[in-house]
Amino acid sequence: MTDPAQLTGVVPPLVTPLTPEYDVDTASLARLIDHQLTGGVDGVFVLGTSGEGTFLTDEQRQVVLETAVSEVSGQVPVLAGVIDASTARASAHLSAALKAGVDGVVATAPFYAATHPAEIERHFVRLASVAGDTPLYAYDIPGRVGTKLGASLMISLGQRGVIAGVKDSSGQDASLRQLVLDRRDVGLTGFAIMTGSEVTVDSALAFGVDGVVPGLGNVDPAGYVRLFDAVAAGDLSAARAEQDRLFRLFEIIDVADRSRMGASSAALGAFKAGLYLLGVIACPVTAFPSIPLSEDEIAAVRPLLERAGLH
Amino acid sequence: MTDPAQLTGVVPPLVTPLTPEYDVDTASLARLIDHQLTGGVDGVFVLGTSGEGTFLTDEQRQVVLETAVSEVSGQVPVLAGVIDASTARASAHLSAALKAGVDGVVATAPFYAATHPAEIERHFVRLASVAGDTPLYAYDIPGRVGTKLGASLMISLGQRGVIAGVKDSSGQDASLRQLVLDRRDVGLTGFAIMTGSEVTVDSALAFGVDGVVPGLGNVDPAGYVRLFDAVAAGDLSAARAEQDRLFRLFEIIDVADRSRMGASSAALGAFKAGLYLLGVIACPVTAFPSIPLSEDEIAAVRPLLERAGLH
Amino acid sequence: MTDPAQLTGVVPPLVTPLTPEYDVDTASLARLIDHQLTGGVDGVFVLGTSGEGTFLTDEQRQVVLETAVSEVSGQVPVLAGVIDASTARASAHLSAALKAGVDGVVATAPFYAATHPAEIERHFVRLASVAGDTPLYAYDIPGRVGTKLGASLMISLGQRGVIAGVKDSSGQDASLRQLVLDRRDVGLTGFAIMTGSEVTVDSALAFGVDGVVPGLGNVDPAGYVRLFDAVAAGDLSAARAEQDRLFRLFEIIDVADRSRMGASSAALGAFKAGLYLLGVIACPVTAFPSIPLSEDEIAAVRPLLERAGLH
Amino acid sequence: MTDPAQLTGVVPPLVTPLTPEYDVDTASLARLIDHQLTGGVDGVFVLGTSGEGTFLTDEQRQVVLETAVSEVSGQVPVLAGVIDASTARASAHLSAALKAGVDGVVATAPFYAATHPAEIERHFVRLASVAGDTPLYAYDIPGRVGTKLGASLMISLGQRGVIAGVKDSSGQDASLRQLVLDRRDVGLTGFAIMTGSEVTVDSALAFGVDGVVPGLGNVDPAGYVRLFDAVAAGDLSAARAEQDRLFRLFEIIDVADRSRMGASSAALGAFKAGLYLLGVIACPVTAFPSIPLSEDEIAAVRPLLERAGLH
Repeated sequence: MTDPAQLTGVVPPLVTPLTPEYDVDTASLARLIDHQLTGGVDGVFVLGTSGEGTFLTDEQRQVVLETAVSEVSGQVPVLAGVIDASTARASAHLSAALKAGVDGVVATAPFYAATHPAEIERHFVRLASVAGDTPLYAYDIPGRVGTKLGASLMISLGQRGVIAGVKDSSGQDASLRQLVLDRRDVGLTGFAIMTGSEVTVDSALAFGVDGVVPGLGNVDPAGYVRLFDAVAAGDLSAARAEQDRLFRLFEIIDVADRSRMGASSAALGAFKAGLYLLGVIACPVTAFPSIPLSEDEIAAVRPLLERAGLH
Repeated sequence: MTDPAQLTGVVPPLVTPLTPEYDVDTASLARLIDHQLTGGVDGVFVLGTSGEGTFLTDEQRQVVLETAVSEVSGQVPVLAGVIDASTARASAHLSAALKAGVDGVVATAPFYAATHPAEIERHFVRLASVAGDTPLYAYDIPGRVGTKLGASLMISLGQRGVIAGVKDSSGQDASLRQLVLDRRDVGLTGFAIMTGSEVTVDSALAFGVDGVVPGLGNVDPAGYVRLFDAVAAGDLSAARAEQDRLFRLFEIIDVADRSRMGASSAALGAFKAGLYLLGVIACPVTAFPSIPLSEDEIAAVRPLLERAGLH
Repeated sequence: MTDPAQLTGVVPPLVTPLTPEYDVDTASLARLIDHQLTGGVDGVFVLGTSGEGTFLTDEQRQVVLETAVSEVSGQVPVLAGVIDASTARASAHLSAALKAGVDGVVATAPFYAATHPAEIERHFVRLASVAGDTPLYAYDIPGRVGTKLGASLMISLGQRGVIAGVKDSSGQDASLRQLVLDRRDVGLTGFAIMTGSEVTVDSALAFGVDGVVPGLGNVDPAGYVRLFDAVAAGDLSAARAEQDRLFRLFEIIDVADRSRMGASSAALGAFKAGLYLLGVIACPVTAFPSIPLSEDEIAAVRPLLERAGLH
Repeated sequence: MTDPAQLTGVVPPLVTPLTPEYDVDTASLARLIDHQLTGGVDGVFVLGTSGEGTFLTDEQRQVVLETAVSEVSGQVPVLAGVIDASTARASAHLSAALKAGVDGVVATAPFYAATHPAEIERHFVRLASVAGDTPLYAYDIPGRVGTKLGASLMISLGQRGVIAGVKDSSGQDASLRQLVLDRRDVGLTGFAIMTGSEVTVDSALAFGVDGVVPGLGNVDPAGYVRLFDAVAAGDLSAARAEQDRLFRLFEIIDVADRSRMGASSAALGAFKAGLYLLGVIACPVTAFPSIPLSEDEIAAVRPLLERAGLH
């Protein structure tokens, strides 16, 4: 079912619904997955940045993995984030994810300690040896990790079969484009390039990216699927209109008062507030120690949903 | 034995000696601890940044904790780093450290996710509730974590008994000094302020810092003890001479070729090379995926040791 | 001729050809302008970042302005950079540019001193009062200036007639897109949005940007004109092919040895080397104190020109 | 009178008093200089960062230079900032300063364009050739310029007679200390090392720095002179008490509402407010486009002056 060479389309990085006591809310997670499958997504990605994977205990991670694999039940690939500061710790997450039966794993460069490209290379090579036949994707998110994954290293790792692709959350379209061009020019196949940007998807698809991993896709998976399908059908005008609508919907991340919470809390809190208002999840709280959105802030998300046609 | 109010002096952040296979080398760790106690240190700090705590598995961390507690055997306090991206994960490390019998725990702000001071506050309050009577120290290392711990938050947490002090590795003497002044002006007692800088210790002690947590103290603990004692005895000229000698010894971190490894690898590799050349540890390798120093680079450490009078 | 509402298309930021003695080489500048006009550009922009405007004396700036206005001779608009650290100093450049007869002026936010958006607003309002009827464009280049020009401030300044548009060299397509959407949603007309990126032009034009100010356009103006025309004609496939070719040509900026010169010197040196090899300018030297490309580095530009079909 | 080898002590970077119409207020500048000389300073530094040199027109700079040279009248050295983005533009300022009769000139690395150490070296060598016998000081202010001046380059330029010293406003005591050690170890004489930090002066003097260039010295020159004299007399306890008092006085820079103005405006506005309240200058306005402090903010400076014993 999940030939990694074929990873394309819309693969939202699922939030992890929590109870007010900060336990994983498996019923809400099941509803979220149903919301995604109904929306027509091509895969789901759990325990990524949107999934607050680095906030959860090993036990909570296990619950998320098992719930996702079970609820998705083979209908689409399930990717799992194995994001941690070092190779050894990411490896442990990777082994757990394999045991849970995921279809692919996603790792960042090491963080906290300052690393060099040669060390990042060793990191991915080691993780790939643990992953075996399960595809490993590199997750480029310099804003969190402090290191940009260079195109030449990514392509080289792809040519050697170490990684099956890249999720680019760098926000740098020039480097994303270089990846696409380099892939073409070296004739690399079976190597997926996905953008993590919510707001430049039509452009990225137009210049050759394979798909999108949009946090906002938690709230509106069907919108991203329509956007992807419009590009695939060559209707760039429809794609742009859909992208513009989603651009405006993305403004829910600006609802929260940034003088009292961090950027992560504001964005993830907004996604969860949207899902809460849509009746998908039971509680909009983000992982401890994140400050939750206030009732007023949650209420302010509603008109933005409605403006985007979501009810 | 370990009234947290009394944390002062020289408390080196111990490296974690590894075998060529990347296992914890407990015999070398025991010798390192003996090297420290012989040097006259006032405490040891394991699983910090120098201890490559974020590189190690939970099992390896456990080995380090047990070895350290057992070898130190109550002669000085043992502090343990519980550094991880989120409260939940740091809490798990904290519980393990308590079980192992450490005398204090040291935590950074959360990282990977962008955090707000109000979230950092929740983080430390929660960790303190887990730590109970064991003192919790805040570790300010913005270069790794991306967030500076503000003086007013630190003092407020101190006044409420949440933290027993701060280890400052910010490299910003102005903010360190503000912490010292604010502590005095609010009359806060039982709150330790330690600098993590290797090279400005005489100055920091002179303006009121209580002690130092120097990575270079792995190699030359006796030097830092002499430096501390000189300041305590009011002999600032001797202190400055000792600091100058240690400043030059610190240049071992520039031996490695930075075009092929990261800054962490170069610095920790140099500390380990020094300990290896002094016969304290059996193997100078740093944690995977760090690139190790070459034989030539290791050899280049020797003349710098000798220049500093270490044999 | 120069209705600011009509600024669209390809407006290369011209390099300033220099003699080996660092004087402005007016003959080469005249040939460069001819190269541009022959290439079909819609305007030229002198004394920008590519024009090394901040490197030149007032006298040299005057020579560039007069040469450009005279050589262009009204065939296309001439824009002039008035980039300096403060309002007063940029105003002086602005007055000089007006006297020389330019058709538009381009200013960044203040730099060196840290500024606030309210101060940036005062800066542009004051500059606009000096500019009078000559259109003023805001130049967003946070990598040089240290401040990002926010979309809401830009739109507000546009609505009040302070600025006639924005040149975006932020490299952040998400914010560029926000500018385009906000312009549409508030119904702002006569407000040009130009991208300064060499490598994402087809995308930017497709989502509604009006034109491009490409440094690489010095070397290959006709290529950018073809790219623009292809998008205008709705032939996105041809546009993408042209963009891909120019993406590869842009790799000339990587020819120089970055261990011995700065990024500016490497990029501008490459543009000048290309023009030198094409016979357009007489000497490829960049402004003092920039390190010039070596003969070998200049020679290494040639195969990249040929690969791109330039002879 | 002004052997550059002898630059030591307290050399405040004078603010430039302005009228409400943003003209240079020469009467206030004269009173400020008298305030400094009465305070016992060892020199004055005009047109630096505190002097808003980059905000002023060439004509205004000229007025400041002439007023300062005339009012100081040879009692202490007058240094002048020649801070601009490039060598050519700084050279023009330098020539003007020489003509006005200053005793030394102070230049930063180039800015706006990204530069390499080899280019910075060329910059200072060229400026020194313009300066001739007048000593040239390097001004290390990476927060504004984007580049740190490395110790090895500074020492090398000192050994070759290019620069007569360094003003360090990097806030990095470790690198400042390296400069002091390297100067000693290579036996370099006639090379002044001055700190630009207001709040770590006793420490810096204790480890071998020659003097201080404190913005806060505008307000309280006598305090910095007492601090310097205490260190010179070996009374570190008195020095620390004076430094602590000045540390608290420095909190005037936090009086302004940072949500409506930049950091520069808040700090310089506070210095000027202090001088205004002390009757030294007639108007506390900062250079356009800086937002001025409000009346309430100016009033809030008064109790901090009084707490510090200034009336």
